[in-house]
Amino acid sequence: MDEVNLDELATKPNTWLDASGPEADIVVSTRARLARNAAGHRFSTKATHKDKAEIETLASQKISELQDLNLHYVPLKEAPATDKLFLVERHLISKEHANADWPRGVAIAPESGISVMVNEEDHLRIQVLRSGFRLGEAEEAVYRVEDAIAKVLPFCFRPQFGYLTACPTNVGTGLRLSVLLHLPVLAMLNQIDQVFRVLSRLSYIVRGLYGEGTRASGDFYQISNHVTLGKSEQQTVAEMEKLIPQIVKFERECRVKLISENRTRLEDRVWRAFGILSNARAINSEETLEHLSAVRLGVNTGLIKRVPIGLVNDLFIATQPGHLQKLQNRMLSPAERDAVRADLIRRKLAECN
Amino acid sequence: MDEVNLDELATKPNTWLDASGPEADIVVSTRARLARNAAGHRFSTKATHKDKAEIETLASQKISELQDLNLHYVPLKEAPATDKLFLVERHLISKEHANADWPRGVAIAPESGISVMVNEEDHLRIQVLRSGFRLGEAEEAVYRVEDAIAKVLPFCFRPQFGYLTACPTNVGTGLRLSVLLHLPVLAMLNQIDQVFRVLSRLSYIVRGLYGEGTRASGDFYQISNHVTLGKSEQQTVAEMEKLIPQIVKFERECRVKLISENRTRLEDRVWRAFGILSNARAINSEETLEHLSAVRLGVNTGLIKRVPIGLVNDLFIATQPGHLQKLQNRMLSPAERDAVRADLIRRKLAECN
Repeated sequence: MDEVNLDELATKPNTWLDASGPEADIVVSTRARLARNAAGHRFSTKATHKDKAEIETLASQKISELQDLNLHYVPLKEAPATDKLFLVERHLISKEHANADWPRGVAIAPESGISVMVNEEDHLRIQVLRSGFRLGEAEEAVYRVEDAIAKVLPFCFRPQFGYLTACPTNVGTGLRLSVLLHLPVLAMLNQIDQVFRVLSRLSYIVRGLYGEGTRASGDFYQISNHVTLGKSEQQTVAEMEKLIPQIVKFERECRVKLISENRTRLEDRVWRAFGILSNARAINSEETLEHLSAVRLGVNTGLIKRVPIGLVNDLFIATQPGHLQKLQNRMLSPAERDAVRADLIRRKLAECN
Repeated sequence: MDEVNLDELATKPNTWLDASGPEADIVVSTRARLARNAAGHRFSTKATHKDKAEIETLASQKISELQDLNLHYVPLKEAPATDKLFLVERHLISKEHANADWPRGVAIAPESGISVMVNEEDHLRIQVLRSGFRLGEAEEAVYRVEDAIAKVLPFCFRPQFGYLTACPTNVGTGLRLSVLLHLPVLAMLNQIDQVFRVLSRLSYIVRGLYGEGTRASGDFYQISNHVTLGKSEQQTVAEMEKLIPQIVKFERECRVKLISENRTRLEDRVWRAFGILSNARAINSEETLEHLSAVRLGVNTGLIKRVPIGLVNDLFIATQPGHLQKLQNRMLSPAERDAVRADLIRRKLAECN
């Protein structure tokens, strides 16, 4: 398995943010994830440091045998903080995986949106990211990766339960499907809480852009299924295939309503955001997400014509601290980051003129 | 005396805002004003409605005889609210004069910055406005107007007191000199209160852009002498000629300090303001003044090169409600004004590209 060059990766946009796929103006991306554990090894909750080191060696070796997947292994135990932050920002590893202190890593194939975390909560967390609303496709893709790995690394499975996992919420299929939705107008018109109440009643989980605990920066909401036991993969996909379009429809209806009832308010919000991003000389991450969200809405409603949506999508990630530091190749103080971030945004938006 | 066309006047910039004259980046304009009362007529405090009507007829007739001054008389008793607001915004009449309900008016020669209010607090308030720091010139000009009027309308004068006025604070010379200063960096660095304490100890009055009671919108401060009794005109001018340059110097020093210590903060403030003004689709008067102040600072510190300072100066006045309504030729709701204002600013700034 080749070494992966994260510095080079940092200069490339995320394929899962290229705005391809159905409903990509609202459903930014789809993620399918499987939780798997190697048969005959202690689960992470009981595993010693030595057990984990063994799992890492085993898993990374086995995965490297699967040449077709073109996965590159990145060990994380000794990795620089900037690299870990960078991988979190690209949604290739979780925050928890970045912050752990035991032997662990991630195998990635960024072009195909695949990442396999080793020694996260489970031995393996296999994930596939796709641009747009593509549940079936993401699910098939993640099972292809899982099939391939299962051939070289047998998983812990019980016929009456399904796949066993470190946390009971994942037992069964071990499958979690999520979509990342951009819902700026539902947020603007205070309709978002209503949506969340319904989702929570249906046992879905809603999070912000960067996983649990993050508030919904930039009006991005990640919606995931919660139940993996007693539901087949087909049921899970079918249920979300029905549910998500309803939210998409609601956001679209609210956009039409806003445009017809208060076009000036929408235009003002969108263009001010564009004006600030095109001119600021220092801007923090939170304010950037807020304005990028408005610009994204402007592009998707046809108010802003000169900026491609893929560029806006990419700026959401490229302006995060890890990416900025990776691109500058050094640690940056918060004030330096704010200046570098403002310069990057200004340059990118100026290129659209 | 010709009728003056206010609609036509509304399309013209203010000569006293053309950024000519010494120190015009900080001393926006200089004003000299004389309070005078016609001998043998009751002062406004004692005058009946009929007395005031007589004064108006007398004064407007006498002034109209002075063809050299090219003054145009605007009666205000029946004038539309928009006209009065417009004249206040151009600093040609006071707010109090606009809001009074007795016979009154103003004779104006806008090109030469002259206005003579009839039946304000005194029978006559003769005023000359000049761009930049030109105390001596403004004072000479106002006395030339006063001399001319005195020849046809004798003033109330007592050798031991000087000119008598309705309010004792104006007795003596009846002269008030004021300068309008733009002090954005003293405000930004919280140094402005210190300046005001000194000024108040020296019996100067500090006001905002639109006279007494207005807070300093857009970081504009009008500084006037307070004492007219026991001080000659020469003393008054000499004292201000010494004092104002010290404030100008302090603002300049703070600008140098800000640029050397926190250039990014200054640039960010200036360019964000420019970005918002160039892109907003609705903006209220207060926010406009705030951002115009930052843009003005940007132009005067060389950060913004494409925008002429005269245009910025003019926008401070042209974006006021009276001007917007005069230009649209109708009353506007606050929401309409905010949209019309944003359009005007955007168009004017786009012309600078």
